[in-house]
Amino acid sequence: MAEIFASRRVRHTPFTQGVVAAGVKAYTVYNRMLLPTTFASIEEDYHHLKSAVQIWDVACERQVQVKGPDARRLIGLLTPRDLSMISESRCLYIPVTDQNGGMLNDPVLVQAAADTYWISIADSDLLMWVKAIAACNDFNVEVCEPDVSPLGIQGPKSDDLMAAVFGDGVRALRPFGCGRFDVQGREMLIARSGYSKQGGFEIYLEGSVHGMGLWHILMEAGKPFDVRAGCPNLIERIEGGLLSYGNDMTNENTVLECGLGKFVSAERLGECFGGRAMREELEAGSKQMIRAIEIGGGPVPVCDHAWPVMAGGRRVGQVTSAAWSPDFKTNVAIGMVDSHHWDAGTELKVETPDQVRRAAVVREEFWG
Amino acid sequence: MAEIFASRRVRHTPFTQGVVAAGVKAYTVYNRMLLPTTFASIEEDYHHLKSAVQIWDVACERQVQVKGPDARRLIGLLTPRDLSMISESRCLYIPVTDQNGGMLNDPVLVQAAADTYWISIADSDLLMWVKAIAACNDFNVEVCEPDVSPLGIQGPKSDDLMAAVFGDGVRALRPFGCGRFDVQGREMLIARSGYSKQGGFEIYLEGSVHGMGLWHILMEAGKPFDVRAGCPNLIERIEGGLLSYGNDMTNENTVLECGLGKFVSAERLGECFGGRAMREELEAGSKQMIRAIEIGGGPVPVCDHAWPVMAGGRRVGQVTSAAWSPDFKTNVAIGMVDSHHWDAGTELKVETPDQVRRAAVVREEFWG
Repeated sequence: MAEIFASRRVRHTPFTQGVVAAGVKAYTVYNRMLLPTTFASIEEDYHHLKSAVQIWDVACERQVQVKGPDARRLIGLLTPRDLSMISESRCLYIPVTDQNGGMLNDPVLVQAAADTYWISIADSDLLMWVKAIAACNDFNVEVCEPDVSPLGIQGPKSDDLMAAVFGDGVRALRPFGCGRFDVQGREMLIARSGYSKQGGFEIYLEGSVHGMGLWHILMEAGKPFDVRAGCPNLIERIEGGLLSYGNDMTNENTVLECGLGKFVSAERLGECFGGRAMREELEAGSKQMIRAIEIGGGPVPVCDHAWPVMAGGRRVGQVTSAAWSPDFKTNVAIGMVDSHHWDAGTELKVETPDQVRRAAVVREEFWG
Repeated sequence: MAEIFASRRVRHTPFTQGVVAAGVKAYTVYNRMLLPTTFASIEEDYHHLKSAVQIWDVACERQVQVKGPDARRLIGLLTPRDLSMISESRCLYIPVTDQNGGMLNDPVLVQAAADTYWISIADSDLLMWVKAIAACNDFNVEVCEPDVSPLGIQGPKSDDLMAAVFGDGVRALRPFGCGRFDVQGREMLIARSGYSKQGGFEIYLEGSVHGMGLWHILMEAGKPFDVRAGCPNLIERIEGGLLSYGNDMTNENTVLECGLGKFVSAERLGECFGGRAMREELEAGSKQMIRAIEIGGGPVPVCDHAWPVMAGGRRVGQVTSAAWSPDFKTNVAIGMVDSHHWDAGTELKVETPDQVRRAAVVREEFWG
């Protein structure tokens, strides 16, 4: 595609200088901020991610900070998920739903302090939703976007790199576990989380000014582990079934359609936005749902719009992310398929830009 | 800068096909949608915009549709502007403010039908703010993003082109006047508005599927007027003092700081979000305000972050948009300057990436 035009509105991150020095080839814009998408090539980045360790500038996962006596009450309105597990040592993935049960975002909720929460957002201005709820309910909270920028460390050698910098204590973190660890006298909140299935961490950098310092420390310490600058990888995240808000789901889709039913607590439906709609959908059954889809033929073109999924001459769904998988030697894809065609093994056709291709629903657990 | 990576999340528009065929060289991303920024070059586009007529894909000005019996009541909460002038034949520029008087967006409000309003937004997900206000107040309204995409016709020959397609009736529209006009049997809402000072219109296309049809009709009819595909032009919009949300103002800035005081009605401050904060600022005086700034020396580099504005060795503001103006033969800029340094003629220094340059506050009315 064409070049991206620079302006203040498409924000740089505390790590952009490192990303540029590492030879970034393409960006997307995510929460009005630069997110690298390609360094060497999508495929080369993919192989490296699966074998070594990468440092990811994911500062675009902006934080919505909710702070104050009513913070927990406000957050309870946002999501149907049971929040009893949240603590300063455990973060949670929380689907955020509107009054109709439609997805607004699918962030990770972090408890940064006793009365301070960070909602680490996917690509939508959830800040506006949260601010309005605070204003309309006259909640005693401050809602803002703080100067906090996640840096991802992803790949099978993540533990080794992180231990080299932050000490062996980080190895003990369990998935979605978090804690505070020191580097050169500066304490940082670190979680075992991230947008890959290769294992890894997210460091919540507080204070943009410290960004490049942290970047250089990690790059230097990572040399023995073949560290590189990287980014969320299209192929790997599809293999792993990691959904992308704005690609695989939008506000048009309910949390249940997105296959996120395990994060919907029946007991909480009376307390959150969209609870009634979710209860109705739970009783009636969902009309469509996210599925892993295998698409035949050679490598598919870039999926930059929804590709129609057909069966018996009728449209029964759409593919929203797709890529050729070198490891699985097939085109891996994520799509929304209607209830009559979502069983594993169902044969489908997908109208890709270059041709109509044979496809099939694979299994719920994706590939990765 | 680097390439922009294609995905469904960075949405195409109903006119992207035309934009690509016209040789677009760069895009920005605006409301998670492609917005062209350069065709021939910023300078060549600029000269053409000022002398002929251009067709602009500004579909990224998404609409927040508010429809229903409580629509007007809800909209009254959003803005401090007096709304008595809004009608189906008159749209209004409305600053939208949060509970602290901070800017959330600066859209144009269009009344599409008796109980249907379109808020034609700048670059922030105002949909979330409006949806939350509807949900929290249990207003009887539907809030959604409809399939409505503005197409801009801008430049001194806009009237001629529009009259050729929609009839001479469009010539009678006054600034911010709007009405419905036919093309090939299809009625379209048209306003005399747009993001340039060269005159022009915005056509609110209803139904993406009709996008390229409209594009081709306008391109064909525009041949006698040297029509080209164009886009908001960085130089021209700075000359004209047209602010860019996310560049020149953010949620950190109040409506008064943005120099938008003329859209703040004292009588409405009891009825909208942020009214108390605005009243306090009106009484105490603003601490900083948007100013036109002239920057010395040769053409400035790209302004992709806030440039410090200095006086007497102290930081007294920032420049957020800047470009060399071929017509005014100086660097034109927009910045925020503190109250002790905002008078016309005040000498300043601006720390541009290549050097510290002499600068001065020019006048409130900008150049264009």
